[in-house]
Amino acid sequence: MIRALAAKSQTSALVPFEFDPGTLRPDQVDIKVESCGVCHSDLSMKKNDWGMTAYPFVPGHEVIGTISAIGGEVRHLKLGEHVGLGWFSGSYLTCNFCLGGDQNLCKTSEQTIVGRYGGFASHVRTQALWATPIPAAMDAASAGPLLCGGITVFNPLTQFDVKPFHRVGVIGIGGLGHLALQFLNAWGCEVSAFTSSSGKADEAKKLGAHKVVDSKSDAEMAAIAGSLNFILSTANADLNWGQLVGCLAPKGRLHFVGAVPSPVSLQVFPMSVSQASISASPLGSPSTTRTMLGFCTRHNIKPAVEYFPMSKANEALEHLDAGKARFRIVLKNDL
Amino acid sequence: MIRALAAKSQTSALVPFEFDPGTLRPDQVDIKVESCGVCHSDLSMKKNDWGMTAYPFVPGHEVIGTISAIGGEVRHLKLGEHVGLGWFSGSYLTCNFCLGGDQNLCKTSEQTIVGRYGGFASHVRTQALWATPIPAAMDAASAGPLLCGGITVFNPLTQFDVKPFHRVGVIGIGGLGHLALQFLNAWGCEVSAFTSSSGKADEAKKLGAHKVVDSKSDAEMAAIAGSLNFILSTANADLNWGQLVGCLAPKGRLHFVGAVPSPVSLQVFPMSVSQASISASPLGSPSTTRTMLGFCTRHNIKPAVEYFPMSKANEALEHLDAGKARFRIVLKNDL
Repeated sequence: MIRALAAKSQTSALVPFEFDPGTLRPDQVDIKVESCGVCHSDLSMKKNDWGMTAYPFVPGHEVIGTISAIGGEVRHLKLGEHVGLGWFSGSYLTCNFCLGGDQNLCKTSEQTIVGRYGGFASHVRTQALWATPIPAAMDAASAGPLLCGGITVFNPLTQFDVKPFHRVGVIGIGGLGHLALQFLNAWGCEVSAFTSSSGKADEAKKLGAHKVVDSKSDAEMAAIAGSLNFILSTANADLNWGQLVGCLAPKGRLHFVGAVPSPVSLQVFPMSVSQASISASPLGSPSTTRTMLGFCTRHNIKPAVEYFPMSKANEALEHLDAGKARFRIVLKNDL
Repeated sequence: MIRALAAKSQTSALVPFEFDPGTLRPDQVDIKVESCGVCHSDLSMKKNDWGMTAYPFVPGHEVIGTISAIGGEVRHLKLGEHVGLGWFSGSYLTCNFCLGGDQNLCKTSEQTIVGRYGGFASHVRTQALWATPIPAAMDAASAGPLLCGGITVFNPLTQFDVKPFHRVGVIGIGGLGHLALQFLNAWGCEVSAFTSSSGKADEAKKLGAHKVVDSKSDAEMAAIAGSLNFILSTANADLNWGQLVGCLAPKGRLHFVGAVPSPVSLQVFPMSVSQASISASPLGSPSTTRTMLGFCTRHNIKPAVEYFPMSKANEALEHLDAGKARFRIVLKNDL
């Protein structure tokens, strides 16, 4: 039996919950959970914001742990090996996108907390290919948030060919943005952090920003107009997107990884004269996740985390929901 | 003196107009105009729709002609040589975009009909680098529209790495779209034409479409959902952009070259799950224009044109304004 924490409905708190995971498939492994990050998606799923939550609902998709059971066809992992698990837990590897290495774009992938039980638990099950080996030199205790928040902001840099000589901007200095600043600084870029919160300027610079731009200041926005090759928006908010497109250099791109509440509305003409692109993307593939963990190890990139015991998961979710997390929460397993 | 046709105000018809072009700069040439295409931008500029028209206004930026005068520094063209001239007529070649080969993205370029006199004239002047040599094997009489309409739809195929194995769509089967269909067929793509006008289906197929999709039919739109790698919108209209994004395959792109009247409004979430991009672009560089003319010659791609004598330019503009052009108008010079 797996011991977990589950919400019985969209309004109820997490309570102890046990379940039998059934027979392990030959392509699967079980992970003994050491720690699990808390992501805003866990909150959204718990509340059924996206209309796809099954109850009892066990959150958790930023898992760090060790292989505790291994399917008969799995040859590349071994019992006791340190691995991470993120948003996805299964891909059938038969569609063009899976076969082409873009498993995160597969339309029929299995998702760790959708219709199955996640990582707020003693153990979590996954198809072996989504269990990413954690490099020995990595600080595993703080690594969980890389598996969802980290890959979400790292993947676009690989997909859209961000270059070390590019000028880039990051909107939103939170759970995702604080990782994006570190990645882009290590990438070699000139990094500008957009924030409307003056209290975050020093933090942004410590995380790798070379400049901080007050997105509420028309003067500061005018000073940066036409200069950025790539802007990564991690904000879960409706901003002045037209003004931000105006910050792009010719051939620049405004890329969304945040959950923008309202439709993004843009005039085509200003996009045309500078050949601007707008795009969005979800998470990343197993291969890109491995690449990211290697990059983090080499550049000493770590999520800034606050720790809670997993038994206090309800308090952790409240802390996150109140916007108080600096910048990411990790639950240490005491179940 | 140059003999031209000019509008004295935004409401007046074109009337004969003579002007002295002044001294030829060493980097310029004069072109004796043989023919000139009529573009919708000529109409918009005549009416001052974009607030940047100077009167008297001489339209014309799809010029075919021969070099009639040549500046002292021009070494790559010769008197009598057949050339074409499009939207741009001068680049200072000092900004990063000019120096990098993206002269069409330069912020200080000279534009053929903006603050100077265009090609509805006996002669037109240009910086030599924007006078593109017309291949000997090309049908020069019909080539004018390639210099603006053609390059507008050819350039994105080069900028966004459209591949011969891609499935592509073209929205709008008009002056731009009828060239896009020919280009994309020759490019090796599987080409779908979107049209809301059933009368254009046969024409679209003759121009290179493998399929025609009625964009007003929910059933036909559903059948093509998730399948296209690249959609080129040439429509000057507000369409259901969200539905069209739904036609994109993962990593697909919806690209605008038409003048869309209202802001384009899109939800980020559907773009995210398929890593979709939206973009827009203006015209093309001198290098891409030369590449296009070679491609057209090799693949026998020609604008479908209706001819008017230049002295009937007012009738030609009315024909275009009434939406009757099939598909592009060329004025043969009789001034």
